[in-house]
Amino acid sequence: MGIKEACSEIVKITREKSPLVHNMTNYVTVNDCANAVLAIGASPVMADEIEEVRDMVSIASALVINIGTLNSRTIESMLAAGKRANELNIPVIFDPVGAGATPLRTKVSQRIMSEIKLAVIRGNMSEIKCVSGLASATKGVDAAEDDAAEDSGADIAVNLAKKLGCTVAITGAVDIISDGKRVCRISNGVADMSKITGTGCMTTSMTGGYVGACGKAYEGAVTAVAVMGISGEISLEQSRGTGSLRSGIIDSLSNMTPEIFLSRVKIDEESY
Amino acid sequence: MGIKEACSEIVKITREKSPLVHNMTNYVTVNDCANAVLAIGASPVMADEIEEVRDMVSIASALVINIGTLNSRTIESMLAAGKRANELNIPVIFDPVGAGATPLRTKVSQRIMSEIKLAVIRGNMSEIKCVSGLASATKGVDAAEDDAAEDSGADIAVNLAKKLGCTVAITGAVDIISDGKRVCRISNGVADMSKITGTGCMTTSMTGGYVGACGKAYEGAVTAVAVMGISGEISLEQSRGTGSLRSGIIDSLSNMTPEIFLSRVKIDEESY
Amino acid sequence: MGIKEACSEIVKITREKSPLVHNMTNYVTVNDCANAVLAIGASPVMADEIEEVRDMVSIASALVINIGTLNSRTIESMLAAGKRANELNIPVIFDPVGAGATPLRTKVSQRIMSEIKLAVIRGNMSEIKCVSGLASATKGVDAAEDDAAEDSGADIAVNLAKKLGCTVAITGAVDIISDGKRVCRISNGVADMSKITGTGCMTTSMTGGYVGACGKAYEGAVTAVAVMGISGEISLEQSRGTGSLRSGIIDSLSNMTPEIFLSRVKIDEESY
Repeated sequence: MGIKEACSEIVKITREKSPLVHNMTNYVTVNDCANAVLAIGASPVMADEIEEVRDMVSIASALVINIGTLNSRTIESMLAAGKRANELNIPVIFDPVGAGATPLRTKVSQRIMSEIKLAVIRGNMSEIKCVSGLASATKGVDAAEDDAAEDSGADIAVNLAKKLGCTVAITGAVDIISDGKRVCRISNGVADMSKITGTGCMTTSMTGGYVGACGKAYEGAVTAVAVMGISGEISLEQSRGTGSLRSGIIDSLSNMTPEIFLSRVKIDEESY
Repeated sequence: MGIKEACSEIVKITREKSPLVHNMTNYVTVNDCANAVLAIGASPVMADEIEEVRDMVSIASALVINIGTLNSRTIESMLAAGKRANELNIPVIFDPVGAGATPLRTKVSQRIMSEIKLAVIRGNMSEIKCVSGLASATKGVDAAEDDAAEDSGADIAVNLAKKLGCTVAITGAVDIISDGKRVCRISNGVADMSKITGTGCMTTSMTGGYVGACGKAYEGAVTAVAVMGISGEISLEQSRGTGSLRSGIIDSLSNMTPEIFLSRVKIDEESY
Repeated sequence: MGIKEACSEIVKITREKSPLVHNMTNYVTVNDCANAVLAIGASPVMADEIEEVRDMVSIASALVINIGTLNSRTIESMLAAGKRANELNIPVIFDPVGAGATPLRTKVSQRIMSEIKLAVIRGNMSEIKCVSGLASATKGVDAAEDDAAEDSGADIAVNLAKKLGCTVAITGAVDIISDGKRVCRISNGVADMSKITGTGCMTTSMTGGYVGACGKAYEGAVTAVAVMGISGEISLEQSRGTGSLRSGIIDSLSNMTPEIFLSRVKIDEESY
């Protein structure tokens, strides 16, 4: 079974299994993350209080950590939940939002990567370069133009994946996903998706759903990135601007089937 | 005047009175709660800082407490606001989101029920069973399938309503609302509403608006649950997926009239 | 160049420059604020942790402070970020949400106005009267009817603008913007915009984008208020209720051009 077929199967089983995804995420895009997780057939729960996160993650199939609006209280909760997830072999998906934009975000990202065993890291090129220890320009939470044009993305993804023993997903005009041995390039998606806040965060939370359902970090991440790209394409065809594009992406996610996935996906995989 | 007519009258007077609803709710669905409250003609305000919640609730017609993303800071604020509301005879509506999912949520729910006199509790079957002290399965913030199939819902609602001297609303495929003497069953709504986050939270916040306008806990809760169900039905007819279903629910709420209500509502009431 | 032409130019250059706007705002409308900032061509970032706000604001072109859901932690962060912005000559836009509704909001607003040099204050008539030290009715976060009918709006705006040396924007049925010397009246917009939460907050965040791009507080604020009003008008033509009105406003913002702006804007400016 090739990667396309494997991913289309994950689309299907996620609706059957409806895995619970514990999201510790930012208050900007959290509603879209919850609706995206529901739209792909999984079940979201949000909890960030230190007194309950260990309990909540224990009943979840995946934990998503997103530092988009981190604070001193939630940083400790994220670390506690991540460690508990590790003890229970529950996959942890990490989104280093804005790593490189401030020293705090860079430092917390490094702490999360060193103290928690991650299944997947997903970010834009500026963020992934930053957490890889490479020089990166940055502009808040969006990828810098110089970084977006980076042509050594596959090397960066492979190296970080090998270093951390996890899957790395770099999303951009062309998405690159690697587990250190395989490299996937996905060319679905439309430029206007960068004009909506949260397409990255949603992809990370959806990764939690897909990995939680199938138990495979690399395949789950590829599925999430491709499904988001395809949904953006379908939505753009019917949108009148970025407001309806956003709403339409959730529509398209909720309508996604293995058949639509296979007919639309543009994916290229190679060994590395 | 029967229950249908009483509720249709509440739909009308809420638009005339525009009661202020103080919402202490979660950061996942808060925007939808605010827009739902506005759509039914009431006015929402959100405040959770302990230094101001007593003042804010004092100018409100109802207080909504929703523990969807509770934390140690907001728990204390919720208790303080609830006690002040009690002193001023302002109705308090409680949504025990995720009760049973973690010990913290169960414990905080019990504390709120014992320290604050409630007008209405609204939850799904898993949550209401949990706060009733009954064994319940749970899966994050969604009702467990076993619980959703519970056929003793009326007994559970009546017993909790009598115990706390308040109205209990259990929402699901068929909604059950009781004040301990009357039991209402509402069969409006569509299954896809469970694929959007926040339909429950919105119903709770709308209950604040309706109860705040009419001063009657049971009738206000029945109105909120029925109006949400009807709005889901109307929205589904025009939706292309869960994104447009969500946006369409707010549309339908904003267009709701006593006439639409009476022509659509499916309600069955009996004494108990 | 008249004010209309100046504003239409700002619409254009904001898309070219894509200024970073650091938003410290409430969790109710934050997603709409982010999408509105993106829709006008600017780039939003949200950060409220005291350990990083000085760093984040340093890379931004404008700072937006909105006290819609203030708490003791974020108040300190707002003050710290504002002072750092002042040191770096980065314009600070302030939205005193709910000033007058509680003593805390009034007190914090006064503290922000006295400790931080502001570029723009934007609020409804109740809020601006409150922060001007005038008696104001208030109802949560919406303008009181008595205040909305205030006919001395220009005097109030001019006096506060002179006192603080900043631009004051009072939004309502007719919007009034003044820098102490000039007064602009804008009569775009539709009444239904008050039935959506966040049109005010979005206007404030958009002011951050426009002022950040052009460096002119008065012209930037006029542009934001007019663009929001025009977008509301366009959206209403295609909406089916307040849910689609909300989504349509983001659509219209994302489609805004200097040409649409010039053909639609209803603006009247006089010296004072």
